[in-house]
Amino acid sequence: MNPLDQTKTIGSRLSDQASERTESLLSRYQEVRSFTEVLCQPLTTEDYVVQSMPDASPTKWHLAHTSWFFETFVLAAAVPDYQPPDPMYRYLFNSYYVGAGERHCRPKRGLLSRPTVAEIYQYRAHVDGHMMALLEQLAASPCAQLASVVTLGIHHEQQHQELLLTDIKHVFSVNPLRPAYAVPCDPQVDSNATSTLGWRPYPEGLAWIGHAGEGFAFDNEGPAHRVWVEPFQLATRLVTVGEYLAFIEDGGYVRPDLWLSEGWATVQAQGWQAPLYWEQVDRNWWMMTLSGRRPIEAKEPVCHVSYYEADAYARWAGARLPTETEWEIASAGATLAGNFVEHQAWHPIPVESAASPSALHQLFGDVWEWTQSPYTAYPGYRPIAGALGEYNGKFMCNQFVLRGGSCATSQTHIRPTYRNFFPAFARWQFTGMRLAKDI
Amino acid sequence: MNPLDQTKTIGSRLSDQASERTESLLSRYQEVRSFTEVLCQPLTTEDYVVQSMPDASPTKWHLAHTSWFFETFVLAAAVPDYQPPDPMYRYLFNSYYVGAGERHCRPKRGLLSRPTVAEIYQYRAHVDGHMMALLEQLAASPCAQLASVVTLGIHHEQQHQELLLTDIKHVFSVNPLRPAYAVPCDPQVDSNATSTLGWRPYPEGLAWIGHAGEGFAFDNEGPAHRVWVEPFQLATRLVTVGEYLAFIEDGGYVRPDLWLSEGWATVQAQGWQAPLYWEQVDRNWWMMTLSGRRPIEAKEPVCHVSYYEADAYARWAGARLPTETEWEIASAGATLAGNFVEHQAWHPIPVESAASPSALHQLFGDVWEWTQSPYTAYPGYRPIAGALGEYNGKFMCNQFVLRGGSCATSQTHIRPTYRNFFPAFARWQFTGMRLAKDI
Amino acid sequence: MNPLDQTKTIGSRLSDQASERTESLLSRYQEVRSFTEVLCQPLTTEDYVVQSMPDASPTKWHLAHTSWFFETFVLAAAVPDYQPPDPMYRYLFNSYYVGAGERHCRPKRGLLSRPTVAEIYQYRAHVDGHMMALLEQLAASPCAQLASVVTLGIHHEQQHQELLLTDIKHVFSVNPLRPAYAVPCDPQVDSNATSTLGWRPYPEGLAWIGHAGEGFAFDNEGPAHRVWVEPFQLATRLVTVGEYLAFIEDGGYVRPDLWLSEGWATVQAQGWQAPLYWEQVDRNWWMMTLSGRRPIEAKEPVCHVSYYEADAYARWAGARLPTETEWEIASAGATLAGNFVEHQAWHPIPVESAASPSALHQLFGDVWEWTQSPYTAYPGYRPIAGALGEYNGKFMCNQFVLRGGSCATSQTHIRPTYRNFFPAFARWQFTGMRLAKDI
Amino acid sequence: MNPLDQTKTIGSRLSDQASERTESLLSRYQEVRSFTEVLCQPLTTEDYVVQSMPDASPTKWHLAHTSWFFETFVLAAAVPDYQPPDPMYRYLFNSYYVGAGERHCRPKRGLLSRPTVAEIYQYRAHVDGHMMALLEQLAASPCAQLASVVTLGIHHEQQHQELLLTDIKHVFSVNPLRPAYAVPCDPQVDSNATSTLGWRPYPEGLAWIGHAGEGFAFDNEGPAHRVWVEPFQLATRLVTVGEYLAFIEDGGYVRPDLWLSEGWATVQAQGWQAPLYWEQVDRNWWMMTLSGRRPIEAKEPVCHVSYYEADAYARWAGARLPTETEWEIASAGATLAGNFVEHQAWHPIPVESAASPSALHQLFGDVWEWTQSPYTAYPGYRPIAGALGEYNGKFMCNQFVLRGGSCATSQTHIRPTYRNFFPAFARWQFTGMRLAKDI
Repeated sequence: MNPLDQTKTIGSRLSDQASERTESLLSRYQEVRSFTEVLCQPLTTEDYVVQSMPDASPTKWHLAHTSWFFETFVLAAAVPDYQPPDPMYRYLFNSYYVGAGERHCRPKRGLLSRPTVAEIYQYRAHVDGHMMALLEQLAASPCAQLASVVTLGIHHEQQHQELLLTDIKHVFSVNPLRPAYAVPCDPQVDSNATSTLGWRPYPEGLAWIGHAGEGFAFDNEGPAHRVWVEPFQLATRLVTVGEYLAFIEDGGYVRPDLWLSEGWATVQAQGWQAPLYWEQVDRNWWMMTLSGRRPIEAKEPVCHVSYYEADAYARWAGARLPTETEWEIASAGATLAGNFVEHQAWHPIPVESAASPSALHQLFGDVWEWTQSPYTAYPGYRPIAGALGEYNGKFMCNQFVLRGGSCATSQTHIRPTYRNFFPAFARWQFTGMRLAKDI
Repeated sequence: MNPLDQTKTIGSRLSDQASERTESLLSRYQEVRSFTEVLCQPLTTEDYVVQSMPDASPTKWHLAHTSWFFETFVLAAAVPDYQPPDPMYRYLFNSYYVGAGERHCRPKRGLLSRPTVAEIYQYRAHVDGHMMALLEQLAASPCAQLASVVTLGIHHEQQHQELLLTDIKHVFSVNPLRPAYAVPCDPQVDSNATSTLGWRPYPEGLAWIGHAGEGFAFDNEGPAHRVWVEPFQLATRLVTVGEYLAFIEDGGYVRPDLWLSEGWATVQAQGWQAPLYWEQVDRNWWMMTLSGRRPIEAKEPVCHVSYYEADAYARWAGARLPTETEWEIASAGATLAGNFVEHQAWHPIPVESAASPSALHQLFGDVWEWTQSPYTAYPGYRPIAGALGEYNGKFMCNQFVLRGGSCATSQTHIRPTYRNFFPAFARWQFTGMRLAKDI
Repeated sequence: MNPLDQTKTIGSRLSDQASERTESLLSRYQEVRSFTEVLCQPLTTEDYVVQSMPDASPTKWHLAHTSWFFETFVLAAAVPDYQPPDPMYRYLFNSYYVGAGERHCRPKRGLLSRPTVAEIYQYRAHVDGHMMALLEQLAASPCAQLASVVTLGIHHEQQHQELLLTDIKHVFSVNPLRPAYAVPCDPQVDSNATSTLGWRPYPEGLAWIGHAGEGFAFDNEGPAHRVWVEPFQLATRLVTVGEYLAFIEDGGYVRPDLWLSEGWATVQAQGWQAPLYWEQVDRNWWMMTLSGRRPIEAKEPVCHVSYYEADAYARWAGARLPTETEWEIASAGATLAGNFVEHQAWHPIPVESAASPSALHQLFGDVWEWTQSPYTAYPGYRPIAGALGEYNGKFMCNQFVLRGGSCATSQTHIRPTYRNFFPAFARWQFTGMRLAKDI
Repeated sequence: MNPLDQTKTIGSRLSDQASERTESLLSRYQEVRSFTEVLCQPLTTEDYVVQSMPDASPTKWHLAHTSWFFETFVLAAAVPDYQPPDPMYRYLFNSYYVGAGERHCRPKRGLLSRPTVAEIYQYRAHVDGHMMALLEQLAASPCAQLASVVTLGIHHEQQHQELLLTDIKHVFSVNPLRPAYAVPCDPQVDSNATSTLGWRPYPEGLAWIGHAGEGFAFDNEGPAHRVWVEPFQLATRLVTVGEYLAFIEDGGYVRPDLWLSEGWATVQAQGWQAPLYWEQVDRNWWMMTLSGRRPIEAKEPVCHVSYYEADAYARWAGARLPTETEWEIASAGATLAGNFVEHQAWHPIPVESAASPSALHQLFGDVWEWTQSPYTAYPGYRPIAGALGEYNGKFMCNQFVLRGGSCATSQTHIRPTYRNFFPAFARWQFTGMRLAKDI
């Protein structure tokens, strides 16, 4: 296997996609469904099977579940007599939708050798066949309700594309052979890359926050509403590996006074001494990446840190994490560009050395930015009716909001109002941070 | 043992206290310290020893820890050559102040038969002797810094008085003999008590929230700051046992669609079917109280519910929990009166039948009201310097704010800006809820 | 996939083996190594990867570990400059030989997607190439020590063949699709098969027990020694499914008085209601077999019972389990024949209806028979020196001896003195029982 | 509290008992019941309450349970209309007798502050009153069946006397204050005490083992039966602290090759580095005893070792543990004398320096000696009918036999055929070892 060749293949497919971008739902469906399979090209059959921890899922489960989603919420509703290839699939590939029936136990997804990978690709083809027929019908006689569920399914699949990458990274990380998923598309990083940490000020005031306009958004992004904000300033770039290393070397992981109580308990219980995927070999720090194990790079954004670590670092640095409101205010007017999955770097990258020191960098892509905001309902929030109402609302407890997308997110998937959320201890996503301060 | 006699004793002591209320720190110190011991009068020596779950502490630990607090943060700082009766006490009775040194493991507090109860009372007397001397000095030559730590220690002791009661209730509840702590002072509840559930509306606007004025407040109550609030309405009284029973009988505990995902997982894992301390005997519901086991009372406020249950009930009732901001707005101008520990009811009580249906009732006392607000730092929050900075700040993660105090809280301890906080699963405090709605 | 076709292939290979049986070590090596791969023919690539519980291993781990055994204990010792294909294999495929270095954590064997199945077959070929060369040399210039380790490795591989089957059965059993491994070679079971339960008496006396003669035996089978035995009688056949069902229907799993204290605690904690792999569907009992799920068969020997269940059944039946000494006495002079893996029934089978009621049946093959004997060292036992001494000796604690082999054991692997051992709670092997009584 | 004074009191009571020994059941009952209370004299009320681990019980539970035993198996059967002081006591103080009804969960015995210690002493008095009346009747009109259950209850109480001491030692050991139970009666140990380790040989042969004669024995001590024994030799004294220290210093706890597989896993999981109750202070070893913490003494028998440690030590020493048969053969004709609880040393003591090097020492008392014999039924064993059949039989699984009694055992309680049993990991009893060897 030569991952480089494979990623070249991925690359050409992607640029094709970019050039051919169309607004038709059918095209979007095909592009996104196809991209999921493109992402699987570097994998062996064995790689599809493994579940390395309860929070992660096997690749083949992601492939099946995203098909189940269209089957359950679109085909079963809109196509009379629709039948899945195997009635047991309804059970096996439901994730957490209690309203959609009983389901297989999440931590046991990795115990299923069957259906095989080939059978799951057949399942995808089965669903795609029916979906394509339906979407052609839909083009002829539009139905806003159906279109909105299909659009939701497309965004849902993009979320699982990101999970597929972070989950397979975890699978490879627990293997002493430390296999690589793919080499970065453009491995030449500007070795002089650097960027002074600047601060951008924002005044106090009443801000409108949340999704209000055209286009798709998840239910948890609305309704738009007003929030009063005190004056604040935001760092112009993400915290880097080099800066985080200084925190470690200053005793970051052995000083309880820097940590939330729960964070410190987690550090002790888990034996954390560095971000996830870092290991010390002969006193040097190495890290596992989707391209295998390599030395850490000081100028890259730090990633795979928990909320606890982000919060402790900020305290050590004399700053704090931004609120999600502050982040969203800062993102107003920013270009939706950055190091996304289409870039095939498979990892966050440094700010270019020529970048303006006063502009905001890395707002989108690279790493999801932890905010200090617990994930709660916006005032007036109402979940979608039915089982799809379980998509977001029932998780509004003991999680924190992250903003901006990562190097594993599709550019077409992210928005300034997008609210990602994970528990404070989660580290296996591409999660990092940007500092904020009161003025 | 005749608990009634004992509670009579408690009663007279309390009314004495009320009449003699003074502003002198020394008097306050004596009153509060003495009240802790008054609360222990109904206990046998054996009762002081038991720790019935990791979150609760033995009575004798509360007695010692509150003394340790004065010793560590006042005497050790202000009294040259101060020595504790046993140097090991520093270790045994530190709760969670990492900055104050190593400490005994919390879940093992119930494994210590020594020091004996008598020795712990001697420890209290030792600390009180030194404190009294110091406070007399302090009266002569005031020191604001020292006075503020003493005041904090007094409020700290009042917090532990409430915990002492809720912890001993738990101890008695796990005992098949279901012992009683004390009979209610005035057991005649108005059996016609009832109160229509009314709703009070509040307009949108920018509100000042948090503690700003004179008098004591914990650091987490400030700084005062502005919050924008959408229009809302608040229920005029607490949710009652009868209303909650309707939720149970409508399948409240078997319908996952009513619950947060974490809440449902907890219901399943713990086998919850009702609030803590309820048990079904021959199809009738009984409950454990500080006065022993008795049938539930429909008109009383429901208590010993978790955040998960409060949230599920509100969803079922077509309402929601208030935010802490909404609660604080509503409390503006309310009289600080209610069913507090001094009332010796040892349990929440119904609204009187003659009460005005449009006024807000039970805002203070009876039960702590769960809000939908995660416990976070107010904008500009800075913890106290030193080990005392661990008092509140390090717990600002994965907890929810509760407001208003309970039947186990001292009237002199509560304020409109007071922010209590517990994890979403906690049920052993006197916790209940008041509904809110959008307008 | 048509399992029937595949098992036909297995069948012809096996009969070839039987006819060509040779005493040469090289031939034995080739036969056994090849048979391991024959057993894998019905599997998909995905099936090789999964580890369904900590006690079981993925198929590909078995394939690799048996090769590692020859590599570590033969090639590394006898072949100068021998190198494994990847130095990490030493770590990945060591099971429990502390003397052979660090090793990968057992419960995490199923987290390794790499090396792939193809790479592991290459590993086997690599080892086989070196072994074949060495065994040809050895034929020319014999070395007893080396030959004995090779022979041990061959028997070791046969043990893993049995585990491979029981482990894949477990993998398939936890999959809601209930996949089949292979159809039985001769699925026509004599439906009139039956056999009255007879009892054979044995007198008291001093018996010689343990392996003493020619031929291979594990170290734990010796030294031969004398044991005094009181008079006893032994059932002429295994306990059947029908008999065990009567135990269940008589409240076997709800009557604590029938159970060892540990057994009852296990029944309660695990919710056991029947042997492993039984499930009730609409009040009928079905069972998972290597040929998929099917109704239970009353006349078959019961299998997949723990020691606890075997012991409780015996108590209920007014009998007891035999000691291993009693079993070995009874096996003296018995023909080493039975339902072994070569028969390809993949499951225990009933005694033929024409069988003599007074003869001992099913002594070998079908199911491993639990004895009441804890697995201990025979008097004078000395483990082999070096890491191979860990093979048996270090497990002589809290396990029970089983005798006679099963339908998943090779005929060439079993002996009357063979001592298998498992903890009292183990159920995933083909384990059943024969009753005994005092006279 | 002056423990010395208290133990003097204990001493005089004990010598009184010795001089007044009588064969009457009533006297025996009174002596033993009274001795239980004598053993409690050094305790504070708080000490009675604590349960420091699931395997141990609070003192007050022991006091109540032994009374419950007489109540349930004697009074309820023989005294019409007998009523316990509280019907709930039947539930609270049943240990593991399923046949005697539902019972309180073992690990929660320490959560019960009520009944108080005083109430439990009243309970004892209540039972004693009824028992005394019954025993007087019984003296007049003998009933063998009833007498045998009373005798069993007396021996049962003596077993709990030993547990009471080992359990309170554990309670004190987990308390950082390290309280002492009592000072040794004769603290002057012969500091020149020493004893060469000799070996006594025994020939092969058929031996009669088990209880056959007059007098009380537990059901598990019979029936007497023949066992063939190979020639062996037995160490003339117990393994000492000094010898065990040499094992530690030779890497005993870091060399997996010395351990059973389960033993090594336990060492790793529990972090064992020495026997229970040893702690290293500034590179010196100290140990917790019933008389508080003090330096270890090289010449004392080592105690508080698990079976795993005893087995590993024996392997390191080039020896093995004896079988229970070997131990019983050696005990034939030995005087039933030694360091028992009546001696009030509260700890094992060295062999006197003047002792004969060829005689067997310390066979009885000092420490229970681990044998290599799993605890199994003797041939022909039948448990007592009814709930009392649960006394011994249901524990015959995954435990090892210990012989000879300890410094916490009553002299009147032990016999050469006595079979004590504990799981391999248990360490909180006074357990040690004597070595054996093949000849």
